[in-house]
Amino acid sequence: MKTVTNVRGFTFWGTHTGIKSKRRDLGLIYSKVPASTACVFTRNIVKAEPIKLMMERNWPGKSQVVAVNAGNANACTGKQGREGAEAMVKAAAEAFQISEDMVVIASTGVIGRTFPTEKVVQGIKDSVKKVTDRRVAASLFANAILTTDTFPKEEYSEFDLDGVSVRMGGVAKGSGMIHPNMGTMLGFIVSDIAISPELLDKALKEITEATFNMITVDGDTSTNDMLAVLCNGMAGNKEITDANDEGYKLFYAQLHQICENLAKLIVSDGEGSTKFIEYKVTGAKTVEEARKCVRTISNSALVKTAMFGRDPNWGRIIAAAGRSGADFDPDKTNLWLKTKKKVALLENGQPIEKNLTQVKQMMRSTHIIIILDLQAGEAEATGWGSDFSYEYVRINAEYTT
Amino acid sequence: MKTVTNVRGFTFWGTHTGIKSKRRDLGLIYSKVPASTACVFTRNIVKAEPIKLMMERNWPGKSQVVAVNAGNANACTGKQGREGAEAMVKAAAEAFQISEDMVVIASTGVIGRTFPTEKVVQGIKDSVKKVTDRRVAASLFANAILTTDTFPKEEYSEFDLDGVSVRMGGVAKGSGMIHPNMGTMLGFIVSDIAISPELLDKALKEITEATFNMITVDGDTSTNDMLAVLCNGMAGNKEITDANDEGYKLFYAQLHQICENLAKLIVSDGEGSTKFIEYKVTGAKTVEEARKCVRTISNSALVKTAMFGRDPNWGRIIAAAGRSGADFDPDKTNLWLKTKKKVALLENGQPIEKNLTQVKQMMRSTHIIIILDLQAGEAEATGWGSDFSYEYVRINAEYTT
Repeated sequence: MKTVTNVRGFTFWGTHTGIKSKRRDLGLIYSKVPASTACVFTRNIVKAEPIKLMMERNWPGKSQVVAVNAGNANACTGKQGREGAEAMVKAAAEAFQISEDMVVIASTGVIGRTFPTEKVVQGIKDSVKKVTDRRVAASLFANAILTTDTFPKEEYSEFDLDGVSVRMGGVAKGSGMIHPNMGTMLGFIVSDIAISPELLDKALKEITEATFNMITVDGDTSTNDMLAVLCNGMAGNKEITDANDEGYKLFYAQLHQICENLAKLIVSDGEGSTKFIEYKVTGAKTVEEARKCVRTISNSALVKTAMFGRDPNWGRIIAAAGRSGADFDPDKTNLWLKTKKKVALLENGQPIEKNLTQVKQMMRSTHIIIILDLQAGEAEATGWGSDFSYEYVRINAEYTT
Repeated sequence: MKTVTNVRGFTFWGTHTGIKSKRRDLGLIYSKVPASTACVFTRNIVKAEPIKLMMERNWPGKSQVVAVNAGNANACTGKQGREGAEAMVKAAAEAFQISEDMVVIASTGVIGRTFPTEKVVQGIKDSVKKVTDRRVAASLFANAILTTDTFPKEEYSEFDLDGVSVRMGGVAKGSGMIHPNMGTMLGFIVSDIAISPELLDKALKEITEATFNMITVDGDTSTNDMLAVLCNGMAGNKEITDANDEGYKLFYAQLHQICENLAKLIVSDGEGSTKFIEYKVTGAKTVEEARKCVRTISNSALVKTAMFGRDPNWGRIIAAAGRSGADFDPDKTNLWLKTKKKVALLENGQPIEKNLTQVKQMMRSTHIIIILDLQAGEAEATGWGSDFSYEYVRINAEYTT
């Protein structure tokens, strides 16, 4: 099976440093040569120390090493945490014999606990000779960055450019639904394409809006959310520097697909969730309005509980759309529910009551697509969410007691 | 990323039934049509109830559903366990509306605890409508069958035959090194190739000897070890019924590679392990002797501790070979250690002392290849093992107290 380890010039490792009692808790990515790098960070105003440190850098730029620890978020940790994050960068730079500004770090785990600097530093030192492109290293890395996730999230793809196959792989972790205040979304994507940092940054920012920012787990951003993409040029294509290049379009499509797939895997991984729901809004006046509309519907507790209860209560969807900020005429909207087939619930604002029994039956599926056509313009957006179950409530109730 | 879910006509699911407190513990595989099926079972004389039940069947044959639970091995559970295994088969047959002899079951987890029949039966009923070929189902299944594994093990590949791409994917779980008496190796491989059950059985038995039976984790078989391969013919090739067919050779090579890769992933996943070691014995009189020799060396505690200690103590390797049952003349043997380069330790029975310092340095690698040439014949064998670390001892010591 092809994984991130197939991307030329990148090596990986995941190890156990003792932050967690038993499971792996430190992951490393190393690129043989400095890689064009773009990052996006959490918009939460409470930011973890590694996020603050990374945001002080001039991005887009170059980097060569990514070091990530799980088990401790290094957030709300003050001076000790800041020094810990700096020590993490320094340890990686020394171990890999590169300059400190070539090191990207991230943390995830519990907030507000003393950062275990010594364990992380020792773990980096111990792992530096272990990074490898052997298949297993993809699994070790993907597992080492998890917190409450129930499975690791990996993607891989390739496409041909200038007669070479450009390879790309990504690993992510999700925000555990059962820990809304502690969840973190981290994503690390590597490719061997040659592309300028500036163009990579442009692609990543646009794509993040359409993928990772279109999933809803708990409606909150965490203190530690971060996504980094490293492209080391070892595929040997002519460096892409122009957004009009054919190669840019191919790269953009590939990066989009990997981000979308990782985002969907994150949504699929919620303990209390029984359904994966795709929300598509078409006919909006602008993409921004379409996205707002998708986010409001997919985050609605009323919609989510209706999904869990297999209740074709389309009024809740229209009501959520109505308060989303998107401009449309309710008397013109179309609404469909789709599983294997597509069935109308509303046509030009008129309920199709005869379909309700069939739709209720279709809602037993674990994979549902909701399509809302506002008939107000040409723009559209898609997003993904889960439902809201007894189990979610039970787990959360137990968690807080 | 392509996974088992890309294999035509197979769907999967993994769910939480409550056998484990938090993690997924029930996995299902469903084939749209009856699939040629071959199985291999543990040789341990103490067999779990699902193993006994499955061994009563006439294999090779056909099957359509695989149901696996983790968290309880259903071994040493007597009449209650037997009835539980039968109920598991019955529930899957009823849920998928197929006959009971189309159901394959397996269990893994704690030995000697009452089998949670109700949870497993309910889990099967709840999952029957959820099985899907969506990407996430591969991860859910791979995670639902784990016990002490630190990461799920998945493989996938395809090859062209009769103008169609034949797809194959596999999922395995390993035997946790830290629980030598509770570990189980399970493997489930699916393909859409059309092949007769008899020929599939022949391939599987031969390949198992060269792959899963050539890894060493703790030198023991478990009560629950099992490997099943299902081929449902949905690729549309002409059914392979002759071992001389070109298609059989291609299929054989692909199945071999997937089994070998899964076996290697199992070896890579041991909490206490710091190294992955490949042992290759060449120049043996017979394949059986070569395999015995590999197994004896890779299982030797002296060799394993030397590997951990980076001690180029080749005498232990020769000593293990000497007691393995393989016939050879020690004065003619060659021995190499290989990482990125290959360095001789012994040539025609003569130690190459000048290389020892270099070899000691090479042994810092996490991936080491040992090549022993017996110069006694033409047969060879390869196997894989891990080292024996302080951590392994510490964990085991703590486990028994």
